[in-house]
Amino acid sequence: MENYDVVIIGGGPSGIIAGITGLQQNKGKDFLMIKEEEKGLVPCGIPYIFHDLEDTSKNAMGPKGFVNLGGKVIIDKVVDVKIDEKIVITESGKQFNYKRLIFATGSTPTIPKFIKGYDLDGVYYIKKSYDYIENLRQKTVNAKNIVVIGGGFIGVEFAEQLAKFEDKKVSLIEMEKYCLSKAFSEDIAIVADKEIRDANVKLYTESKVQEIIGEDGKVKGVRLADGKIIDADLVIASIGYKPNSELAKKIGLEINSQGAIRIDNYLRSSRPNIFAIGDCSQKVGFITGRTDNIMLASTATSEARILGYNLCEIRVKRNFTGTISIFSTEINGTAFASAGAIEKSAEDSGIEYVVGQFADVDRHPGTLPGTSKLFVKLIVSPGDGSVIGGAMYGGKSVGELINLLGLIIQKNVTVYDLISLQVGTHPLLTTAPTKTVLIKAAENAIAKINK
Amino acid sequence: MENYDVVIIGGGPSGIIAGITGLQQNKGKDFLMIKEEEKGLVPCGIPYIFHDLEDTSKNAMGPKGFVNLGGKVIIDKVVDVKIDEKIVITESGKQFNYKRLIFATGSTPTIPKFIKGYDLDGVYYIKKSYDYIENLRQKTVNAKNIVVIGGGFIGVEFAEQLAKFEDKKVSLIEMEKYCLSKAFSEDIAIVADKEIRDANVKLYTESKVQEIIGEDGKVKGVRLADGKIIDADLVIASIGYKPNSELAKKIGLEINSQGAIRIDNYLRSSRPNIFAIGDCSQKVGFITGRTDNIMLASTATSEARILGYNLCEIRVKRNFTGTISIFSTEINGTAFASAGAIEKSAEDSGIEYVVGQFADVDRHPGTLPGTSKLFVKLIVSPGDGSVIGGAMYGGKSVGELINLLGLIIQKNVTVYDLISLQVGTHPLLTTAPTKTVLIKAAENAIAKINK
Repeated sequence: MENYDVVIIGGGPSGIIAGITGLQQNKGKDFLMIKEEEKGLVPCGIPYIFHDLEDTSKNAMGPKGFVNLGGKVIIDKVVDVKIDEKIVITESGKQFNYKRLIFATGSTPTIPKFIKGYDLDGVYYIKKSYDYIENLRQKTVNAKNIVVIGGGFIGVEFAEQLAKFEDKKVSLIEMEKYCLSKAFSEDIAIVADKEIRDANVKLYTESKVQEIIGEDGKVKGVRLADGKIIDADLVIASIGYKPNSELAKKIGLEINSQGAIRIDNYLRSSRPNIFAIGDCSQKVGFITGRTDNIMLASTATSEARILGYNLCEIRVKRNFTGTISIFSTEINGTAFASAGAIEKSAEDSGIEYVVGQFADVDRHPGTLPGTSKLFVKLIVSPGDGSVIGGAMYGGKSVGELINLLGLIIQKNVTVYDLISLQVGTHPLLTTAPTKTVLIKAAENAIAKINK
Repeated sequence: MENYDVVIIGGGPSGIIAGITGLQQNKGKDFLMIKEEEKGLVPCGIPYIFHDLEDTSKNAMGPKGFVNLGGKVIIDKVVDVKIDEKIVITESGKQFNYKRLIFATGSTPTIPKFIKGYDLDGVYYIKKSYDYIENLRQKTVNAKNIVVIGGGFIGVEFAEQLAKFEDKKVSLIEMEKYCLSKAFSEDIAIVADKEIRDANVKLYTESKVQEIIGEDGKVKGVRLADGKIIDADLVIASIGYKPNSELAKKIGLEINSQGAIRIDNYLRSSRPNIFAIGDCSQKVGFITGRTDNIMLASTATSEARILGYNLCEIRVKRNFTGTISIFSTEINGTAFASAGAIEKSAEDSGIEYVVGQFADVDRHPGTLPGTSKLFVKLIVSPGDGSVIGGAMYGGKSVGELINLLGLIIQKNVTVYDLISLQVGTHPLLTTAPTKTVLIKAAENAIAKINK
C-alpha cells in the first residue's frame, strides 16, 4: 500500500489549487490526486466551447501545475474511506494511506426526474465532463431548434452562445419573472433579459416545463405549463447542481441540509484530518453565517488556497469567513456582475439596507469611441454605513470593478470611507475622476441615510 | 458688494467637485466660482483631442453640475484677497465677500526658458486652456514633423495620438533611460517604450534638448545635446507643471518647497477659512508624510470631495491621508498602471521591500479571442506584509485592476489577507480563478518574505 501525506479526491479547480498551494507551502510532503477522468475542463468556460472557443480542447484544464511540483495523479474513483485506518479504497481495488484527506468532489447537475421525458435521447445536462461536453458540442452542430431550460448563469450563457449561429433557433425557458434572479434585482434583471432577447434568444420567462416531448425515444419538443409547444431537436437543461457528497455521507461525515459536507472556517470536516473544499462543501453567508448554496469556481479556489496554507496547522488567519458570491457574466456584449447582498437576499435575511446608485459611462469624455454605459448600485447598512453588497452592468471594466466592490465588502469599507477613496482614472480606461461610480453611489447612499 | 458663503477660485475638476459636493452637503449656502475662461477641458482627455476624439469640443468640461445645484459662476480673474476683511478682488474690479475661500487654481506648464528657442513660433506647451489647445490642434493638422519633448504621461500620450496620422513623423525626446520612469521601474518601462516605438513614434531616450532651432522666428528643428538635429515644424513641450500659487503667496499663505500651498489633512491652508485643493496644493507621500509633487485629476477630485463634506466643520474623518498617486494610461492598445510605491521610490524613501509578481492572461481560457497578456507586480513591506505599491500592464481591465490595488494599499491589506481574498471571475472578463493575478503575486511575495 502506498502512503501519502495528502490525498485529494477530485481534480477540478479546488483540487488543483489545494494541491498546488499545499505542495508549495508544505515542502517535502507527498501529495496524491485521484480523479475520475483523464481530461478536465475550465468549468466556467464550458458555455464558450459552443461558439467563441469553437473547440472543446481549447477549454481543457488539467493538474499540470500540480504534477510539475511533484504531485502524483491517478485516474480512478474513490469508493470507500476507512477513517480509523486512514485508507482510501478505489474502484480498481487500490488502497492508499493518507495523513490528510481532502474532498474536492465537486457537484453534478440536478436531473429533473419529475419532468416527463427528462431522459429522452437529445436531452443534455451540463456535466463537467470533457467527453460528455464534447459529445454535446458535436450534437449542437446540426441541431436547428435548441431549447435551454433554466435561466441561471449557465443557461443564459449557453443560450447566448448557441444563438450566435444564424442557422439555429434557440429558446430559453425560465420559471421566474426574470433570468439571473439570484444575482440581480428587477431593475438590472430587466436590462439583462433585454440583452438576452437582443442576442437572438427566444426567451420565455414565468414559464414552467410541463413535459419534454419525444418520438421514438428522441426529443422533439418541450411543452410548457400553459400548453405552448416549442419544437426542439436538442434540449439542454441547466436547473441547478447538487454537491457530490455521497461518499462523504457514506463514511459518516456530517452533511448539511443542502447536502453539502459540513466544515468549519478552515475547511475541516466533522472528522479530524479530513477537509472539504469547493462545490461539495458547505458555504455560509457572510453576514448571517447561515448556510448557503453558492457554487462558484472563484469561491472554490479561494477555499483551496486557504486550505493549502493551513493543511498541517492554522498558519494564516482567515479574516473574512463567509462567502460573498461574486457573480459576473457578459451577455451580448454587456457585462453584468453582483457581489454580496442584493435587495432580495437582504430582505430574506432580515437585513435593513439603503440603496446608493449612480449611472455614467466607462470612459471620459463619453464621446470616446468604445464607450459603454455603466450603472452601479450599492447595498448599504444604514446603521454604520458598511457596504454589504452591490450590482452593476456596463462594458468589460465591470469584470474588475466588481472585484473592487468585493474587496470593499470584505474589508468592511463604509460609504464614509469611500468619500475619500483615491482612484486612478484614464480617458480610455475608466469613468471620469469627477464621477467615479462607486464613490458617487456611496454619496447617494449617504444622502439617503441622512434623510 | 455681493456676499457668498463660499468662493471658489478656479473651475477645473477640483473646483467643480468642491462646488458640487459642497452645495450638496451644505444646503442653503451660496457658492460662487470665479474662473478665468468660459470653456474648460477634461484635463486628462487633452491628448485624445488630437486623434481619437477628433474635436476639441468633444473634450469640453464645464461647471454645469455646479450651476444646476444653484452655484453661481463668473468669468474673471482674482487678483487679490483681503484676508482680514474676507474679500476677493477681481481683475475687472469686482469685490466679493466670502466666509470660506477655496483655492483650486491648478497648475501651469513649466516653460524651459533655459533652452534657446523655447519661445519660437510653433513651440507649444500643454496649457489646460480650451482656446490654446484648439489652436494647437489646428496647427497639428498640417504639421508633418512634430517633436514632443518630455516622455511623461502627457508627452507619451500626445506622441502616441499624433503618430496615428500616417502623414506625420512624430519624435519623442526623453532625458531618462526610459519614458514614464516616475511611475514604472525598468522591467515595465521597457515594455512601455516598446509600445511607444511600435506606435510609430521615433523615440529618443537619454536625450537632452540643446536648442530649439528657428528660422525667421519660426521653429524648424530641435538639436539634441549629442548634436543630432531633428526636423520639426511643430514642437510640443511637456516637461512638467508647477502649482499656480502666486496669488496665495502674495496674500501670505504658506507655500512649500515645491511651490504648492501648504495644507493640513483637511485641505486647510495656514490661514483660517482658506482651503486649497488639487494641483495648487501640497501633496504628501502616504508612507513617509513627506511632500510630493503629484498632479492628478483623480487626486484633485478626491481632495475636493473631502473638502465638500468638511467645509464647515470636520464631519467625515479621513482614514487615509497621504497621496498614493494612481497612474494609468494606454499606449498602442496596451494599458499600463501603477499605484503607490515602486522600487525606486521605495529606495529613495529608505523603505525595505520585497517584490511579488505574476504574469498571466486577462481571460480564461487564454485561447479566447481578445485575450491580452497581464503582468502584475506588488511592492510589499516584509515586516508586516503590507502592500505599499505595485504596477501592472495588460488589456483594458488594468484600468480598474489598479483601483483594486489602490484600495488594497489604502485599507492596509496585507499579502496574508490576499490569500483568502474572494474574487469574481468570468472567462470573457478576467483571469482564471486558479490564477487571480493579485493573489498569485501576493503568494510570490510571501515566498520571498519567508525565504
